Amino acid sequence: MLRSGYLWGVGKNVAILGATGAVGHELLHILAERNFPISELVLLASPRSAGSTLKFRGEEVAVQAVSKDAFAGVEFAFFSAGADRSLEWAPAANEAGAIVIDNSSAFRTHPEVPLVVPEINGEQLSARPKRVSVPNCTAILLTMVLHPIRALGKFDRVVVSTYQSASGGGASMMQALVDQTKAALAGEPPKASATFPPYAFNLFSHNTVIGADGFNGEESKVMTETRRILGLQDLSLMVTCVRVPVLRAHSESVVIDFAGEAPSVENIREALGSAPGVRLLDDRENNDFPTPLAASGGDDVLVGRIRRDPSRPNSIALFLAGDQLRKGAALNAVQIAERLL
Amino acid sequence: MLRSGYLWGVGKNVAILGATGAVGHELLHILAERNFPISELVLLASPRSAGSTLKFRGEEVAVQAVSKDAFAGVEFAFFSAGADRSLEWAPAANEAGAIVIDNSSAFRTHPEVPLVVPEINGEQLSARPKRVSVPNCTAILLTMVLHPIRALGKFDRVVVSTYQSASGGGASMMQALVDQTKAALAGEPPKASATFPPYAFNLFSHNTVIGADGFNGEESKVMTETRRILGLQDLSLMVTCVRVPVLRAHSESVVIDFAGEAPSVENIREALGSAPGVRLLDDRENNDFPTPLAASGGDDVLVGRIRRDPSRPNSIALFLAGDQLRKGAALNAVQIAERLL
Repeated sequence: MLRSGYLWGVGKNVAILGATGAVGHELLHILAERNFPISELVLLASPRSAGSTLKFRGEEVAVQAVSKDAFAGVEFAFFSAGADRSLEWAPAANEAGAIVIDNSSAFRTHPEVPLVVPEINGEQLSARPKRVSVPNCTAILLTMVLHPIRALGKFDRVVVSTYQSASGGGASMMQALVDQTKAALAGEPPKASATFPPYAFNLFSHNTVIGADGFNGEESKVMTETRRILGLQDLSLMVTCVRVPVLRAHSESVVIDFAGEAPSVENIREALGSAPGVRLLDDRENNDFPTPLAASGGDDVLVGRIRRDPSRPNSIALFLAGDQLRKGAALNAVQIAERLL
Repeated sequence: MLRSGYLWGVGKNVAILGATGAVGHELLHILAERNFPISELVLLASPRSAGSTLKFRGEEVAVQAVSKDAFAGVEFAFFSAGADRSLEWAPAANEAGAIVIDNSSAFRTHPEVPLVVPEINGEQLSARPKRVSVPNCTAILLTMVLHPIRALGKFDRVVVSTYQSASGGGASMMQALVDQTKAALAGEPPKASATFPPYAFNLFSHNTVIGADGFNGEESKVMTETRRILGLQDLSLMVTCVRVPVLRAHSESVVIDFAGEAPSVENIREALGSAPGVRLLDDRENNDFPTPLAASGGDDVLVGRIRRDPSRPNSIALFLAGDQLRKGAALNAVQIAERLL
């Protein structure tokens, strides 16, 4: 079977499974932006979404239904079609010789699949694994900020409350937020969707299944993956995940307790200010701090509101915002591929 | 000077300063709903807002410019026109013999003015003070939930992250959120107002002045007032206040560390489920938890997501939502007046 992937001179053969989704869309953007060397680009989706075309480097590239043959000759396969699709198609992609860079949760706790944020544990890629997991978006943003700070003192505990945008639920949830907000502004009564409460001017506990311990699926992922990325298996972590009516970019309110006295605000600012992929935005005078709007479309995780707890000498608080679709997913995936080049 | 307050048979003479604001509007609703015994109702506002009329019990009542004479004969004066107006007019109202029930921050730290949430420290009203402060809305909602739980174990520390609605910034901020959201949906670029960042589909650190300790004004209020209401001056408290694009009702993500082992989820549910003014909404199976929409227009503070921290045996988390304009302000004020009747 002849593939209809588009061909550009010298580079790698790249496939994207889930090309028509929100993360797939962002992957195309970022591969172009960063001039990732692509020889052939194969865009794949479910049979339902196949048949359309997507623009890349000025060319219309056909979206094909995923199949075993579609991976022939592919060197890097980005997966962003959900965990079930990853489990189904990773073997075929690996068999064809491709390295699978997976945005889903399918392999994130698999001991042989590294869970990588390149700025933190990129050295795990030197073994050239056949599969690499991109962590949960909220865990990526959190660890990007925790990592530079841990050089300043041993963590005793971290408490996180999230403000997660619709983009985490994909293009369909973003559309639902827009549609429901239009309806609300037109005076229509609030309406729940099949899988989440009314969203217009409202917020709700993250709409994932609640476990026996009372934590929802997102919270469990963030806690498990944060520990794994940082290599701190015993870190005491309490996470509360909440969806807010923001279209794009997640925010997190974070309190860090240290085993000893907390580092000074100045030292934390220095550590964060010089960390790659992190941008300090902590202007008390002008009340200018991270917002999802300021983070949207950017590569950096924004961090500010850094302050010590006057009632606990070992504790600090901060607030961060980062683009869930970029550093929280697509950008992190492309950075992994760049390291593997 | 003859006042134009409307007269209804037997009851108290009641004045509302700030009648045209968001809390003033809610005060009128709640006084009517609860059949507060009113003989004469005097609606007061700044000269700028005077001249209009507001409906109460089917009658149009004129809004007058506030003046010293306006308080003659008034027995209960509800103030909700900001701290400066409270400082300016409380002496005149007291001189006229009125008890001032103040929704502003003007007297909240004054040792002779009780700071009252009737369900918690209503006994402070038995001395019949001339002035009573209604606490900050976020502190009221928080203490309503902390109070029943503290019977189960000594608190070691409380960490709070808020999700505060536009209603906390008054009618003008609610309108700004609606207007900016309409503009965003029409494709217009985001625009900051004079006093806060772009609000449509965005969130931001609470737009109050940041102190030398790095906490904003709202956070400082919540910490100071929570300690005072609960009578726990040494409580270790870390609060982060964030404005979210929700029109009405505040939410809070709360982590409580106890001095000893944390009480069981079942015991906490029982304590909260039987507390007046609190409603348990903690349905893990149907993912049904407190939302600002569910709390809006209701009297109760909703609480759920109650769970223990598997990494810390002394710690629990929960999530609450309550109507900032009702229990967070107007309802609490009317409940204070009812106790004083």
